[in-house]
Amino acid sequence: MSKKLTKRETDYSKWYNELVVRADLAENSGVRGCMVIKPYGYAIWEKMQAQLDKMFKETGHENAYFPLFIPKSYFSREAAHVDGFAKECAVVTHYRLKNAEDGSGVVVDPEAKLEEELIVRPTSETIIWDTYRRWIQSYRDLPLLINQWANVVRWEMRTRLFLRTTEFLWQEGHTAHATEKEAIQEAELILDIYAEFAEKYMAMPVIKGVKTESERFAGALETYCIEGLMQDGKALQAGTSHFLGQNFAKAFDVKFTSKEGKQELVWATSWGVSTRLMGALVMTHSDDLGLVLPPNLAPIQVVIVPIYKNNEQLDAISTKVDVIVKDLRKIGISVKFDSRTTYKPGWKFAEYELKGVPLRISIGPRDLENGTVEIVRRDTLEKQFISQDDVVDFIEKTLNDIQENLFNKAYGYRESHIAKVNTFEEFKEVLNTEGGFVLAHWDGTSETENKIKDLTKATIRCIPLNTEKEEGKCILTGDKSKQRVLFAKAY
Amino acid sequence: MSKKLTKRETDYSKWYNELVVRADLAENSGVRGCMVIKPYGYAIWEKMQAQLDKMFKETGHENAYFPLFIPKSYFSREAAHVDGFAKECAVVTHYRLKNAEDGSGVVVDPEAKLEEELIVRPTSETIIWDTYRRWIQSYRDLPLLINQWANVVRWEMRTRLFLRTTEFLWQEGHTAHATEKEAIQEAELILDIYAEFAEKYMAMPVIKGVKTESERFAGALETYCIEGLMQDGKALQAGTSHFLGQNFAKAFDVKFTSKEGKQELVWATSWGVSTRLMGALVMTHSDDLGLVLPPNLAPIQVVIVPIYKNNEQLDAISTKVDVIVKDLRKIGISVKFDSRTTYKPGWKFAEYELKGVPLRISIGPRDLENGTVEIVRRDTLEKQFISQDDVVDFIEKTLNDIQENLFNKAYGYRESHIAKVNTFEEFKEVLNTEGGFVLAHWDGTSETENKIKDLTKATIRCIPLNTEKEEGKCILTGDKSKQRVLFAKAY
Repeated sequence: MSKKLTKRETDYSKWYNELVVRADLAENSGVRGCMVIKPYGYAIWEKMQAQLDKMFKETGHENAYFPLFIPKSYFSREAAHVDGFAKECAVVTHYRLKNAEDGSGVVVDPEAKLEEELIVRPTSETIIWDTYRRWIQSYRDLPLLINQWANVVRWEMRTRLFLRTTEFLWQEGHTAHATEKEAIQEAELILDIYAEFAEKYMAMPVIKGVKTESERFAGALETYCIEGLMQDGKALQAGTSHFLGQNFAKAFDVKFTSKEGKQELVWATSWGVSTRLMGALVMTHSDDLGLVLPPNLAPIQVVIVPIYKNNEQLDAISTKVDVIVKDLRKIGISVKFDSRTTYKPGWKFAEYELKGVPLRISIGPRDLENGTVEIVRRDTLEKQFISQDDVVDFIEKTLNDIQENLFNKAYGYRESHIAKVNTFEEFKEVLNTEGGFVLAHWDGTSETENKIKDLTKATIRCIPLNTEKEEGKCILTGDKSKQRVLFAKAY
Repeated sequence: MSKKLTKRETDYSKWYNELVVRADLAENSGVRGCMVIKPYGYAIWEKMQAQLDKMFKETGHENAYFPLFIPKSYFSREAAHVDGFAKECAVVTHYRLKNAEDGSGVVVDPEAKLEEELIVRPTSETIIWDTYRRWIQSYRDLPLLINQWANVVRWEMRTRLFLRTTEFLWQEGHTAHATEKEAIQEAELILDIYAEFAEKYMAMPVIKGVKTESERFAGALETYCIEGLMQDGKALQAGTSHFLGQNFAKAFDVKFTSKEGKQELVWATSWGVSTRLMGALVMTHSDDLGLVLPPNLAPIQVVIVPIYKNNEQLDAISTKVDVIVKDLRKIGISVKFDSRTTYKPGWKFAEYELKGVPLRISIGPRDLENGTVEIVRRDTLEKQFISQDDVVDFIEKTLNDIQENLFNKAYGYRESHIAKVNTFEEFKEVLNTEGGFVLAHWDGTSETENKIKDLTKATIRCIPLNTEKEEGKCILTGDKSKQRVLFAKAY
């Protein structure tokens, strides 16, 4: 607690790294690129999981579990897919250790070499479509709407807590459909769920769009995405939903008998969000004092700190607090009464600020006399004295206010950081000063996309959905363009 | 549906394997020893998880997440631990694939060899205690009560769905304490939680005990366990809770400053239950028609099947059913109305019998006239006609009855399959006829334990807790014994 966080202005990246560790969200482990998710961080992830899981189930999806390991030969079946993932795979080659002959410890037993190497899943399309071949025979078996909560491994060279780690946790949905139209509708439905979750629960405004060909998922015909904007003006891809066409059905020979008795290839989608959302949550709202959590995802929504000089005072305060705690829990508000005697109130205030608890209540002897409590909002740091009789109503209302305020603040920031530009000079100017999203015309070629990236480090985050078409000229080549696309430097 | 299950009497093992697959619980995957948990099986596992998670949290435990990979050197630090797990480890040696030069597909890139091999966790004591060294400094940091839901890998040579698979899902608790006494209390608390869960939710009676030295967890000073008895007279270890002493604190140098200012080693426990419980659940209650699920863990507690000849009848039935469904959901009962027109009622009846749905309701035109429904209990197959007005109360009461009846039935079976024997002849006789648990005297040596195992295949399942001490003579050697121990052939 003693040492202050690095300020965002001073070094945004350092601020983020310090905050994630000091707020007890996660830390690096002794295993290269793999993090430990600490209990407080995991509690937020559990809230995210619970809400997403509910939304998936309400739309007819079921959970299942598929193997961690994928035989190398499965991997090779879909050409674009293996190209996309081969360079970052953890490979299991042996199944036994033995004592070293020189007594120096344990070594890999060379006699326990696998005939075929196993890949630790970076994503599960291949093992799942190998399974779907057995599950799908008839149109009556479709649609198949399945989700999996799992860990995956991608051997990243540069890692950062939550944003890019070798192992991460995620959900991956894999659905099978009788028609192209249904599969596209599914990919879009999931995109809407992701956007609703981001906005209503994370209080993070997002832009929906589709990826350009070069940014598509390896094996997809179309990748839908949601893009958020962080406080340093960089974009973050928060979730993707892929229309896979019949690529995996072809690779794994998954056919069904249609109502008309014909054998047809199955249509597919896959979609996922990961613990990366934790990074997005931190970077969207938090400040130089620590985390700022939206009430809808805060493991502790209200903390109560007693201020007292002796046990008698603490007892009197506790009696009042017990009633408040009970009333709050009755309406589903999570509240913690921190009556530890081993820490002082000032230490506790700083601690819960760092941890982003939305509302902090303190009660001292004077409050007992006056029938009040002191309440501080984490988002605005505004302090108010409230009558003890009104405290439950006030808290319920204020938690809603905070949730809304966080969204509006982030939305305001995002709206003031979307620039429309028409020349490459302006484009560079915006990126080098304000940052943020830049809406500009592009000629539609990967060549131009790559050139712009090389020159500016900005990538096309998406081709936005639901925007008016507007003809124009590519900022780099001057060639024709049908609509503006969304550029940004990104995480 | 068409083909009947193998009968338990004919071939218990075949019955189990068929049932697990045909009831849509799980199936083998293309990856040796790894299973796919299908949606219906996973839904039962989710119910188990939710209840256990609640019980852990109510007793002060928090969830966290630790890396999948463990560096080989961590593994070697606790001597007994590495001895116990080295022979069944999946080892990651490389982090990249590349295209084969002869164009034959992808191969492991020899240039991407790891400096130190990584073990896919078979259990997480080593990586977690390496982390705890950073988390624990003072007595104020204790106790540390953490649980993880995760996948683990043990390279088993012979695998069976749920009972023994290369990869399985589990929870593993890892706690740290200031004193030996607290750690032992924790190990015992968890044993009680496991036993309560087994009996109240799985309806599976268990015997609590401690393992003999040779059956202890690798690195533990004491292993507590719960043992259930399956319908074929074989025992199944359903959960273990280990008192680890200071072994891992020593190996990973985890010390804390006590209230008195001294540096002391931390005391530890670890404990786990896994998807093996799914196997135990199936084998405790199910019959020759299929699964029998206790209502407390059934994903669908009540299924309603309409019987009709035309759409008019179906509409009339649906109107009635909608009201019943609504009323049942209001009191938290999960109900499915299967109005699919693609399957006939007879097919549906067999399907839900196979899937172990506790109550099946059918409604036909005559029921509409009479104001009744037909209800069939899965456990007794008893059929009753109930007035539509009473149906909700009847269902609520009957689900409780079924839960209780399943426990009582399993308890009766277990009690009639515990034999006390005093000679080795009797011992062999019981094992070769009735099977089940055998309470017998043992001289306390691993030598005798191993001899008995070699001669009879029976192992000491546990030294039961909470039983009277009773002196006697070892059935094999005739040496002195202080109490009977529990033998059985086991899964």
